[in-house]
Amino acid sequence: MLQYITALPSPAWEQTFPRSVVLLGSTGSIGVSTLRIIERHPDLFTVTALAGGRNIERLTEQALRWRPPYLGVQTEEGRAALCANLPADYRPEIVAGPQGYAALAALPEASTVLSAQMGAAGLRATWAAARAGKVICLANKESLVLAGAMLRDLCTRSGAVILPVDSEHNAIFQGLQGRDPATVKRIILTASGGPFRGKDRAFLATVTPQQALKHPNWSMGAKITIDSASMMNKGLEVIEAHHLYGLPPERIGVLVHPQSLVHSLVEYADGSLMAQAGTPDMRLPIAYCLEWPLCLDAGVPPLDLAGAGALTFEEPDLLSFPCLDLARRTIGSGTALPVTLNAANEVAVAAFLAGRIGFMDIPDLIARALDACAAPDPVSLEDIEALDHETRLRVGRWIEKV
Amino acid sequence: MLQYITALPSPAWEQTFPRSVVLLGSTGSIGVSTLRIIERHPDLFTVTALAGGRNIERLTEQALRWRPPYLGVQTEEGRAALCANLPADYRPEIVAGPQGYAALAALPEASTVLSAQMGAAGLRATWAAARAGKVICLANKESLVLAGAMLRDLCTRSGAVILPVDSEHNAIFQGLQGRDPATVKRIILTASGGPFRGKDRAFLATVTPQQALKHPNWSMGAKITIDSASMMNKGLEVIEAHHLYGLPPERIGVLVHPQSLVHSLVEYADGSLMAQAGTPDMRLPIAYCLEWPLCLDAGVPPLDLAGAGALTFEEPDLLSFPCLDLARRTIGSGTALPVTLNAANEVAVAAFLAGRIGFMDIPDLIARALDACAAPDPVSLEDIEALDHETRLRVGRWIEKV
Repeated sequence: MLQYITALPSPAWEQTFPRSVVLLGSTGSIGVSTLRIIERHPDLFTVTALAGGRNIERLTEQALRWRPPYLGVQTEEGRAALCANLPADYRPEIVAGPQGYAALAALPEASTVLSAQMGAAGLRATWAAARAGKVICLANKESLVLAGAMLRDLCTRSGAVILPVDSEHNAIFQGLQGRDPATVKRIILTASGGPFRGKDRAFLATVTPQQALKHPNWSMGAKITIDSASMMNKGLEVIEAHHLYGLPPERIGVLVHPQSLVHSLVEYADGSLMAQAGTPDMRLPIAYCLEWPLCLDAGVPPLDLAGAGALTFEEPDLLSFPCLDLARRTIGSGTALPVTLNAANEVAVAAFLAGRIGFMDIPDLIARALDACAAPDPVSLEDIEALDHETRLRVGRWIEKV
Repeated sequence: MLQYITALPSPAWEQTFPRSVVLLGSTGSIGVSTLRIIERHPDLFTVTALAGGRNIERLTEQALRWRPPYLGVQTEEGRAALCANLPADYRPEIVAGPQGYAALAALPEASTVLSAQMGAAGLRATWAAARAGKVICLANKESLVLAGAMLRDLCTRSGAVILPVDSEHNAIFQGLQGRDPATVKRIILTASGGPFRGKDRAFLATVTPQQALKHPNWSMGAKITIDSASMMNKGLEVIEAHHLYGLPPERIGVLVHPQSLVHSLVEYADGSLMAQAGTPDMRLPIAYCLEWPLCLDAGVPPLDLAGAGALTFEEPDLLSFPCLDLARRTIGSGTALPVTLNAANEVAVAAFLAGRIGFMDIPDLIARALDACAAPDPVSLEDIEALDHETRLRVGRWIEKV
C-alpha cells in the first residue's frame, strides 16, 4: 500500500552530529527560519554552504555571521557584488547560477541539503543532492511535482533520503511514525483556504495582488502566498504527497481548516485519525527534519489549545478554486502534465502579481496549457527543463495577447 | 523521562493468531463491544472464557453464541441459574466470585485478558493476569488506581503487558508510537466535561441522578457516567496515566473538549501535538488493543471532520469539579490515598444514585475520607482490599448520618 519515497536515514546518520548543512535559498523565509534553528543548536550543525539568490545584502549578513566555506548566488553580477562585501580575512568559494547550486548540493563534505529555492529552479539542485546520496530536507515542492518519479528512482539507487519540510507533509510524516504503512487508509492534507475562502468566482475575478498577498495565518513568499490564495499550493502538495507516500490521488484528501493549527492527518484502517497540530511556524517542521530523529525545543511557543478558539474543517470549494482539481488531473497521466501545470502556474502567478491578468485567469491559463500539452513524457532533467521552458514561452505569449 | 509500564508484547506474540481471549465483564458495555469486535474477526480470536457478573440472562445468550470452555459469575446462585439455562450438549466449567475470576485471568490456555469488570472488584483478576504474564487489555482503571506501582512491579517480573482500552490512554498510546519517549514533554487527557460543563456549584448541588446519567457523547455504565459528570473519571484517569506512562502529575494535563472527538494528545519537546481523533465508539480502542499491532476496520464509521462541527478546548473548572484535584492530590503520596479516594467515591456515587446524598456531597465525602486516612501504605493485595473495605464502611457510616 503506502511506500515512503525512500528508506529512512540509517541509524549511523541518525546519531551523527554535528551535521554539515548546505542551505539553498538561505535569504528566503524558509532559509531565514532554518538559520534560526541552527543558531539555537550550534553544537548540532555546521553551515557548509549558503546560497541566497538575488538578495545580496541579506546573503552578505548571513555569510558574515556563519562564514561558510561556500556561498552561492544566481548571477555573475551577484557574485561580484557579494565578493566586494566580504572582508579580506574571509574568502569563501562563491558559485553562481544553477550549475553552482547543483555543485553545492553535491558537496562531499555535506551530509544534509536543505532545498528551499523558489519554484522550478529548485529541481536541478535537488536532483544533484539526490544523486549524491544526501539527506534532503525538501521545502521546494516543485522538485517532486516536476520529477517525482525520477527523484524516487534516483534516491533508491543513491541511498538519498527526502524529509518533507512542508508543514503538511511533515505532519503526515509524524502521523506515520511507528505505524505499519499497510494500515494507512488515506492521508488528509489541511488547507487554510487562504484569504478568499468562502468567496465566489465573480468576486475572485476582481481581486488584486494586494488582497491575494494577505494570507491569514502563514508569513511566506509572494509566489506561494498567491498559490495559497488560489489553492494551487494544495494542488501541488497533493502531487508532492503522491510521490512522497506512494498513494493514488483518491487516497489523498484535502480539508479546509482555516485556523491552520492541525497541519495534516493520517486516517488509519479503523477510521481513526492521527493529527499533528502546532503553532503555525515553519521552524517546527524545519527543525523536525534537520534534527531528526531528535525533537528539540525550536524556540516556538507551544500551541495552547484552550486559548486557540474553535477548530473547524470543511470540504474545499472546487468551483471557486479549480486549481486543486487541475493539479489532481495531472497525477498518473505521465510526466508531461505536472511540468506543464507548474510552468503555466508560475508564469500566470507572475503575470497576476504584475497586474497583467486577473486572479481567475490563473486557472484558465493552466487549464488551457494542460489541454494544449502534446509533448512526449520527459525522461530526463533536460527534457523537463525543455518542456518547462516551452510551456513558459507559450503561456507568456497567451498573456501578451490578453 | 517517560517509561511505559511494561515492555510491549514480543514479536512472537504480535504475530500469534488466533488469540485466546478471557473476557471479564462480558455483559457490560465494554464486554458487549468486545464481542462485536471478535465477531467481526472470528479468524483472529478464540473466546476462552466469559465472565458476566450479575446479568445471567445476557451471559446465557453470550455463552450459547460463543460456547467458551469457561464461564464466570459473581455468586453461587448465579452459577446455578446459568447452569440451568445451558443445554445438555454444552457443559462448560463455571466459576463464581472473585477467586473464580482470578482463576480465569490466569488460565494457561489464554494469551489475552480483557479486564472490564466494574470498579475495585476488577483488581484481583487484573492482578492474577499480571502475575500469570498475560497481555492485559485494561478497561478497569481502578486496577491501576488502587495498585499501579505494585502492578508495574508485577508486570516487570512476569513479562505481562498492559494495553490501555480507555479511549484517552489508548489515544496517548497511539500518539507515542514510534517516538522517542525522551522527547515527550507532557500528555494531555481530554474530557467531555460531562452533562454539567459550565454549571456552578450551586446548580450542581441540586442535580438529580437522572440529570447526571445523561452523558452527552458516550454510552457507558451508570457508575462511570456519574464519574464523568463529577470529573472524577478524569481524576482516576490522571492516576492511571501516571502509572501507565510513568509521568508525574504536573506533566499530565487535562483539557475539556466537549465534542469528545479528539481522544487525547501528546505534547512533544518542540511544542508540537500528536492528537488521536475518531468516532466516539469504544470498539475502536478495544480493537486497537485486542488486535495490536494490526489495525483493522472495526465496523465503526470513520470520523468525518468536515461534518463534525467545530472542535473546542477549554481548561477544566476546578471549583465546580473538585474531584479532579482530589485525585491529583493522591499521586506520589504513597499507596493509601488512591485506595481511599476510590473507595470513598464508589460508595458516594452509589449513595447519590440511590438518592441518598446530593451531587456535591460526592467530593465532600471523598475529601473528608482523604483527610481522615491514617492507614499505613498497603503493600499487598490483601492490604489494599482491607483499606478499601474499611474506607467503604467509614464513608457508609457518614452517609447514614446525613
